[in-house]
Amino acid sequence: MMRELTVDLGERSYPIYIGEGLLQDASSFFTKHNISKKSPLLIVTDTNIAPKYLEALQKELVQGGFKAEAAVVPSGESTKSLAMLEKLVGQALEAGLDRKSTIVALGGGVVGDLAGFLAASYMRGIKFIQIPTTILAHDSSVGGKVAVNHSLAKNIIGAFHQPEFVLYDLNTLQSLPAREIKAGLSEVVKHGLIWDESFVSWCEVNSEKLLALDAEALGYALYVGCGVKAAVVSQDERENGLRAILNLGHTIGHALEAVAGYNELLHGEAISIGMVGSAKLGMRYGATEEVYIRTKNVLAKLGLPVRLPEHFDVEAIMSAMMHDKKFLEGTMTFIVPTAIGKVEIESNVSVDWVREIVEQLKQEDEL
Amino acid sequence: MMRELTVDLGERSYPIYIGEGLLQDASSFFTKHNISKKSPLLIVTDTNIAPKYLEALQKELVQGGFKAEAAVVPSGESTKSLAMLEKLVGQALEAGLDRKSTIVALGGGVVGDLAGFLAASYMRGIKFIQIPTTILAHDSSVGGKVAVNHSLAKNIIGAFHQPEFVLYDLNTLQSLPAREIKAGLSEVVKHGLIWDESFVSWCEVNSEKLLALDAEALGYALYVGCGVKAAVVSQDERENGLRAILNLGHTIGHALEAVAGYNELLHGEAISIGMVGSAKLGMRYGATEEVYIRTKNVLAKLGLPVRLPEHFDVEAIMSAMMHDKKFLEGTMTFIVPTAIGKVEIESNVSVDWVREIVEQLKQEDEL
Repeated sequence: MMRELTVDLGERSYPIYIGEGLLQDASSFFTKHNISKKSPLLIVTDTNIAPKYLEALQKELVQGGFKAEAAVVPSGESTKSLAMLEKLVGQALEAGLDRKSTIVALGGGVVGDLAGFLAASYMRGIKFIQIPTTILAHDSSVGGKVAVNHSLAKNIIGAFHQPEFVLYDLNTLQSLPAREIKAGLSEVVKHGLIWDESFVSWCEVNSEKLLALDAEALGYALYVGCGVKAAVVSQDERENGLRAILNLGHTIGHALEAVAGYNELLHGEAISIGMVGSAKLGMRYGATEEVYIRTKNVLAKLGLPVRLPEHFDVEAIMSAMMHDKKFLEGTMTFIVPTAIGKVEIESNVSVDWVREIVEQLKQEDEL
Repeated sequence: MMRELTVDLGERSYPIYIGEGLLQDASSFFTKHNISKKSPLLIVTDTNIAPKYLEALQKELVQGGFKAEAAVVPSGESTKSLAMLEKLVGQALEAGLDRKSTIVALGGGVVGDLAGFLAASYMRGIKFIQIPTTILAHDSSVGGKVAVNHSLAKNIIGAFHQPEFVLYDLNTLQSLPAREIKAGLSEVVKHGLIWDESFVSWCEVNSEKLLALDAEALGYALYVGCGVKAAVVSQDERENGLRAILNLGHTIGHALEAVAGYNELLHGEAISIGMVGSAKLGMRYGATEEVYIRTKNVLAKLGLPVRLPEHFDVEAIMSAMMHDKKFLEGTMTFIVPTAIGKVEIESNVSVDWVREIVEQLKQEDEL
């Protein structure tokens, strides 16, 4: 069974295909979307994913008549750099990519962000296809945000560049390590927490199936998660307003990642802790304690951390938040839950409140 | 007297102001266009221009209530690199630029391209203002093409990013070296050659005034040059068709620059020789010899080279053309004059014809 949903962005609209075994049939999707068979395409993937799926994908595309070249980058967040972009542009030129060529991102969020920025900037923008191989990437595969990091800030150099389509093969998720599965589910639940109370209930009931990578449950969760994000993005493509709600848990989460050096905490783990902090902040804006408790419980049920490890330095976290690009013109803005499935954008949040909440996050019980 | 014209791009439309002494009044233009006084702005300029105009501009803006920070990059084409972009992003972060900040390009085409790509990619795109200080930059200040170079190809990493407005102070052109004046006029004449026969006639009559930097003549020429480019760009913002006509002389010209290592020939000089080549090619497509002769004469009248220096290697030029991004899917495309003020896009141009014409360019008389 294949699910399909559309990210509605006018002339930049594109479909997301979710199902088992789609990679084996990649050529037919490429053909359907008029990907050039004359101009070479470049598959960008990383050293983790390449041994698993690159050869098969390349073979399938070549058999389908495509000139499928490949570039393999080191895995990990540090690969999202301008230095790596420069290297990839060289490889693209040597492979003969022209303005009708396509960049194909095969991998998780890191590969998607890097390959996406390559597609956005190569010859001022060429076509882009996403083939996510992680649960977390369901998030970055909707909305067209692509970027690389700078030593001083994450995702600071980038663009908005929408793909032609997203091909989500559930089979590629089967080999994910347990820790990455949980971290990926963090963003899935986030989409429920900001938009859809019934989906949060569904996650509470189906947490075990999700953790066991039951294909039917996972397909449904990714379909709903992508759908929520698509609904938000289609109302605010360039992140001028509503789209900010997708940052639930991210202001604290990004700061934790920065302080931990992008190594100790996975992104999904960091925003899990961040979402607990936001729910706590919500109580200062009139949300009931139940919102905070349910937020914490659903995350814990999915095996996600809800407590800030003791050794994190609170002042370092506060200072990292000041460099965040959501820190606009001197005010501090947070996405604050008011109910399960409902959030508000609060600007002028007191820095002292935030500091208190970060301190309290060290006292949370792991459930 | 100030001239004003609008580049018509729907919601991305912007004005170009052309006149004497506009820099002294920069604040009022910034205020008129709602540039933030809360978020810092960053003036990007180079080591040639900084000593002449940076202090005065910064002072004027600070007096006007703007937080005007500055970054000075080395002058010259090699500054258009990803390494320099990385450095500028660091300076922008340290200066506290946020999503409501603005990048101001003070300088010629190199600074405009680099600062423009910084504006396009910093936090996925912030506001951008162009203050060109060369004649040549009249060309790059219309159309939103911004980019940096890769060691293998020029302008290969970039974006389309339109400025808020362009402030063209004719006084800044008075200090240009004679060779740069001529090279800048090359693109001005190009706009006549592709679009407006009467403007070519005007250039023939007014060549001496232009070379003497007569403010009235120069203001008019820049106004018409920008106007032609604006008319073309507004019909084809993303370079899918018509906009290609702006590349008259550029396929050969870019190859000459690449072979000469971006040093020996200025861009305007290279495309001057390229336009003579295109006019020669035009005769194979039915243009009269007069088109070729008049093209050559008007360029020579403005002190531009019309002959390819003997030591250039023809095969090296041919090979450089194959790396050009206008070399699409194996066919060779040229912009070919059919009359003065009229060009056509010819694809499937014979590589042998092109080689013959490049060889003949060494035999042209300098007039």
